[in-house]
Amino acid sequence: MGPDRCGAMSFQTADETDGQELSELKRRLLTMASHAERAVNQAVHALVTRDHDLALQVKENDGILDRFEIEIDELAIKLLAKAPLPDDLRLVTAAMKISQNLERVGDEAAKIAKRTRDLCQETPVKVNVDLPRMARLALDMLKAALDAFGNRDPAAARTVIPGDLEVDALNKAISRELVRHMTAHTAAIPRCLHLITVSKCLERIADHATNVAEEVVYLCEAQDIRHTGKGQPAPASVA
Amino acid sequence: MGPDRCGAMSFQTADETDGQELSELKRRLLTMASHAERAVNQAVHALVTRDHDLALQVKENDGILDRFEIEIDELAIKLLAKAPLPDDLRLVTAAMKISQNLERVGDEAAKIAKRTRDLCQETPVKVNVDLPRMARLALDMLKAALDAFGNRDPAAARTVIPGDLEVDALNKAISRELVRHMTAHTAAIPRCLHLITVSKCLERIADHATNVAEEVVYLCEAQDIRHTGKGQPAPASVA
Repeated sequence: MGPDRCGAMSFQTADETDGQELSELKRRLLTMASHAERAVNQAVHALVTRDHDLALQVKENDGILDRFEIEIDELAIKLLAKAPLPDDLRLVTAAMKISQNLERVGDEAAKIAKRTRDLCQETPVKVNVDLPRMARLALDMLKAALDAFGNRDPAAARTVIPGDLEVDALNKAISRELVRHMTAHTAAIPRCLHLITVSKCLERIADHATNVAEEVVYLCEAQDIRHTGKGQPAPASVA
Repeated sequence: MGPDRCGAMSFQTADETDGQELSELKRRLLTMASHAERAVNQAVHALVTRDHDLALQVKENDGILDRFEIEIDELAIKLLAKAPLPDDLRLVTAAMKISQNLERVGDEAAKIAKRTRDLCQETPVKVNVDLPRMARLALDMLKAALDAFGNRDPAAARTVIPGDLEVDALNKAISRELVRHMTAHTAAIPRCLHLITVSKCLERIADHATNVAEEVVYLCEAQDIRHTGKGQPAPASVA
């Protein structure tokens, strides 16, 4: 940091510094989010194109998301120590939870990459399961939840949540198809198990997207909709 | 709340109220922990004894842990709004994270229960996999991590972490054995897949125990050991 910047800082009030730290928290979280999205995209691309090197890269990059989580926690705790206003307090705790979800999205991407590397060593499985479609759905959910966070848009966040059921149904259908395939072709059992794991990873990514969306609703409406059956707008109060 | 209790409250200082709320937070977290441990114990017992009703009960009780998580978050946010001292601030954020882990332990117990219900409908699989041993290891880790939290004992928390590798190795060995079995007995594929899922659930419970142990180290030493290779005591500083 150059002397100019230090000089400028000395004229700032404490409120301005806090505001900057809050913006920095949001900025880092959104940067972390783009890393998480890229990791999933790359992992699925590596799976579909049987790209061993790309899968390896996803696995190696997982540490980036781990470091983001730690940095965001540190910044959040620094902000919490300053007795933030209620709205900011909710923003900070939501940021901590969203970052934890993103770190886990990264773990799932790394798992997909690991299975991809194993699959690259073997002949392709001749089975018709649309994992790329499932990946698109899960990634769309994640992107929409993070956009809703960026725009503080609880209505948009609520539209994310029903997607979870669709992804769950796809996961079940894909698993059923893979069980059918491995029953008929026992030599393909280990490879089909890798694909079942990938399908589960994608299902979990959709779960994390749902968690992020629920955090956005809580952040904007101070209303906890986790575990409620959820995502529906609250009924209008009767006058 | 009766008038006596209200009367007594009015003589308390703000510090005393905060201290009570912190104790209440710890108390609720430890109660939540005992529910989570019981859920895993019951789920594994139901699996081993093929007890459909007990499995159903575990699934139905999952809501209890969901509610605990929401209540603990609400209490934590109330405490954070009062600008706690640094030590208390760490306690509150650690409590939020530990409660999230316990809620997920409950989810894993519910998943084991669901697979158990499916397995109860079918003839037993004749395969020699020691899931109860794996469950004992994972539960011992969880219990030790929570005791370390209760006693604020970072050394005890660090001893939990290497157990994760042992549980991972057991998960791999069990999965390999199940793959062998289903290759030889294709009719058993769906049942073996249920058991692979149970094994993964137990492996995740050990992951959550590890997360709790890492939070305890952070709480006591203000040192973040997540994603570090971890659990080893910091090297002594050179004089």
